[in-house]
Amino acid sequence: MAQNIYDEPEFFAGYSKLRRSVHGLDGAPEWPAIRALLPDFDGKRIVDLGCGFGWFSRWAKQHGAAHILGLDLSRNMIARAKADTSDPDIEYAIADLNRLDLPEASFDFAYSSLAFHYIRDFDRLVRTVHRSLVPGSYLVFSIEHPIYMAPTRPGWLIDSDGRKTWPVDRYSVEGPRRTDWLAKDVLKYHRTLGATLNTLIGAGFTIRHVQEWSPADDQVAANPDLADELERPMMLLVAAQR
Amino acid sequence: MAQNIYDEPEFFAGYSKLRRSVHGLDGAPEWPAIRALLPDFDGKRIVDLGCGFGWFSRWAKQHGAAHILGLDLSRNMIARAKADTSDPDIEYAIADLNRLDLPEASFDFAYSSLAFHYIRDFDRLVRTVHRSLVPGSYLVFSIEHPIYMAPTRPGWLIDSDGRKTWPVDRYSVEGPRRTDWLAKDVLKYHRTLGATLNTLIGAGFTIRHVQEWSPADDQVAANPDLADELERPMMLLVAAQR
Repeated sequence: MAQNIYDEPEFFAGYSKLRRSVHGLDGAPEWPAIRALLPDFDGKRIVDLGCGFGWFSRWAKQHGAAHILGLDLSRNMIARAKADTSDPDIEYAIADLNRLDLPEASFDFAYSSLAFHYIRDFDRLVRTVHRSLVPGSYLVFSIEHPIYMAPTRPGWLIDSDGRKTWPVDRYSVEGPRRTDWLAKDVLKYHRTLGATLNTLIGAGFTIRHVQEWSPADDQVAANPDLADELERPMMLLVAAQR
Repeated sequence: MAQNIYDEPEFFAGYSKLRRSVHGLDGAPEWPAIRALLPDFDGKRIVDLGCGFGWFSRWAKQHGAAHILGLDLSRNMIARAKADTSDPDIEYAIADLNRLDLPEASFDFAYSSLAFHYIRDFDRLVRTVHRSLVPGSYLVFSIEHPIYMAPTRPGWLIDSDGRKTWPVDRYSVEGPRRTDWLAKDVLKYHRTLGATLNTLIGAGFTIRHVQEWSPADDQVAANPDLADELERPMMLLVAAQR
């Protein structure tokens, strides 16, 4: 069983107050970059892996998708997602992505936002998603960037010239990382960027785009704190095609 | 004109003393990983981009290649490479990869070791290489890893717990990096890993393997200094197929 940190009261309370939880997709600075990677949704059957409060699932329906299956491990999040829509074309269910089964060739698009870094067996999940997609269809996902995930102490240092630097260590040592974020001892799984891509390739996906997210000039102008994100990437966005 | 650092006496003298210069391919710790990415060479026409002293070109001939064109900007290195073989199937020439032209569909394999990070216009070069390859053939190359290249001060720091860390900054700020390595003010061009892959994809290549090189257990056992390379990747290896 995966760690279900999102249903721990302290974590859920903190998570619920994040900009991306309150404002949805527009509260996530990487959303414009993700949106640029999305295909046309008209009539598509979509699976949203780690759907959280369902912001993306609802957006997909508004943009023409025929049916969305939103899956999340968190009972709290699925309950909130269900409460936020009565659309019969959006279906939500509790699911552990570590043990996921999906019907074959039953989706035209797969999406996941910041969920796969919680998954222990990424290879199993990727093969499951690949089988569930019809040929030619896309998987677009974001994860925490391995540069962000790798360090023993993931936090800024100041170098001798006063520059903010991100102290990378253990980059090539894959496996669990426990950090304190919103709650103590949150469990994530570090994989190198190469390993993530090779897993997709090995499952039969073609890599179409790899983006180490950084803020656009207008985003930094509107929110100067985002300039730190130019120093090291926090998120990785990938578009892959079956 | 590209900076021709390899023909500056101080740099060339230092470079000539490196393990990989004295011992050739077996002196390069990443060679076993590169070798695992190479296709069968039997009867193949190969272009070696940044061939240096010609170690790889000669190895390719010994492993069945029909013809090898080794190209390098450095007169010193091409002179040495020519002196080291009289094989009529190995041809060496001075060439600036920034301005390279190659005949269309005339090679069955393209190789480059630690040269592309000196190239300003990577997109132009990749399109040139793509055109020069026959459909289905591979480009395999190594570059300095962008984690290694990005920092303002690319050198180890020690954190408050005594750990060696690599201080990443300016990762998303692409462009020139000037560092002191064997000589002062060596000019390289930093690109994000995503940008490197997207350039290949945009030119028509399919990404087959992405490896952020780290030493194998037996390499660390034989040479404990290599353990540092587990902390942050120094090299990136890519296999792409036309």
